[in-house]
Amino acid sequence: MKEIEFWFSIGSTYTYLSVTRLKEVEQKFEVKFSWQPFSVRKIMLEMDNVPFPPTKQVKADYMWRDIERRAQGYGFEAKVPAPYPLKEFDLANKIAVIGMQEGWCSDYVIATYRRWFVAGLEPGSEPNVSESLREIDQDPERVLELAADETIAKAYLSQTEQAQSKRIFGSPSFIVDGELFWGDDRLEDAVNWALS
Amino acid sequence: MKEIEFWFSIGSTYTYLSVTRLKEVEQKFEVKFSWQPFSVRKIMLEMDNVPFPPTKQVKADYMWRDIERRAQGYGFEAKVPAPYPLKEFDLANKIAVIGMQEGWCSDYVIATYRRWFVAGLEPGSEPNVSESLREIDQDPERVLELAADETIAKAYLSQTEQAQSKRIFGSPSFIVDGELFWGDDRLEDAVNWALS
Repeated sequence: MKEIEFWFSIGSTYTYLSVTRLKEVEQKFEVKFSWQPFSVRKIMLEMDNVPFPPTKQVKADYMWRDIERRAQGYGFEAKVPAPYPLKEFDLANKIAVIGMQEGWCSDYVIATYRRWFVAGLEPGSEPNVSESLREIDQDPERVLELAADETIAKAYLSQTEQAQSKRIFGSPSFIVDGELFWGDDRLEDAVNWALS
Repeated sequence: MKEIEFWFSIGSTYTYLSVTRLKEVEQKFEVKFSWQPFSVRKIMLEMDNVPFPPTKQVKADYMWRDIERRAQGYGFEAKVPAPYPLKEFDLANKIAVIGMQEGWCSDYVIATYRRWFVAGLEPGSEPNVSESLREIDQDPERVLELAADETIAKAYLSQTEQAQSKRIFGSPSFIVDGELFWGDDRLEDAVNWALS
């Protein structure tokens, strides 16, 4: 079973497409994804890379339509535009870091993204956070207390530094055998690379 | 036979992938591409959208590797990095506008892109321009004289304004039944849309 690193930030719009189909891809092919949260926002700010500035409204409109169409093609729903950008980007991802340490990362990320793109509720904010955690049998109070701790801030930063050292600059990114693939539309390339 | 508008600028790196495989796609599916040159540079400048600024070297490195890998996957060569950006971007595209008017646009674009990505010779500059035109039985002297004419500058601007009115912001772009698809990696989506 070949492992593919899946590097992501909750808050990235296109990441919804990958998050929602990775389990199916695992069932279809002999691959396993290792879910790795990081802060794409921090890396993009350092690169002076703003995804949707006001001068790029035409591009932003296209992105939403593209996500909607691609989701339809994959067989699931995307209500667009979803709330963007996230007010509590870091909290959403710190919870994913806790999930990574405790073994429920993918379940949480799938749950919080579904609420974002189907119910229009932002990850990192209520009621999305508590609802998503309860859905996967985690106590919101316990998790939120942990998320406020310095240990998790450090683990989150360390994930981001690791991503940066791997030359990751966007979410979602896939790494297999040292090859970097960026974007949901490169997931098939990453899987083919893993299987070749 | 369904027609798909193919909007492109010579000078866009990813456009190499589409230019090189469109004829094959036409043979495989019941679609026909209408080749439409425009200035993506003008549109991007207006959007304040700089593709590869110095702070984004990591991203630029990725792009070249991605293009190389995708070309290999399609079964053709891409020597990367190719010379970038083009010194004579507008001239390269004005010649394509003449080709559009005279019926040899796609042959010229394929020839000039192959020299760029296989021989490392820039479109719009010599020897690429004259070699590409001679390959397709066009007289370089005649074409270059025409390219310097105000009529062609106006036709080129008109193409760009049309692209803008269609909400195109990047190259390559495909339009079918009013749906816009951006990027070589959306070519299959555009074809599926045309055939559905």
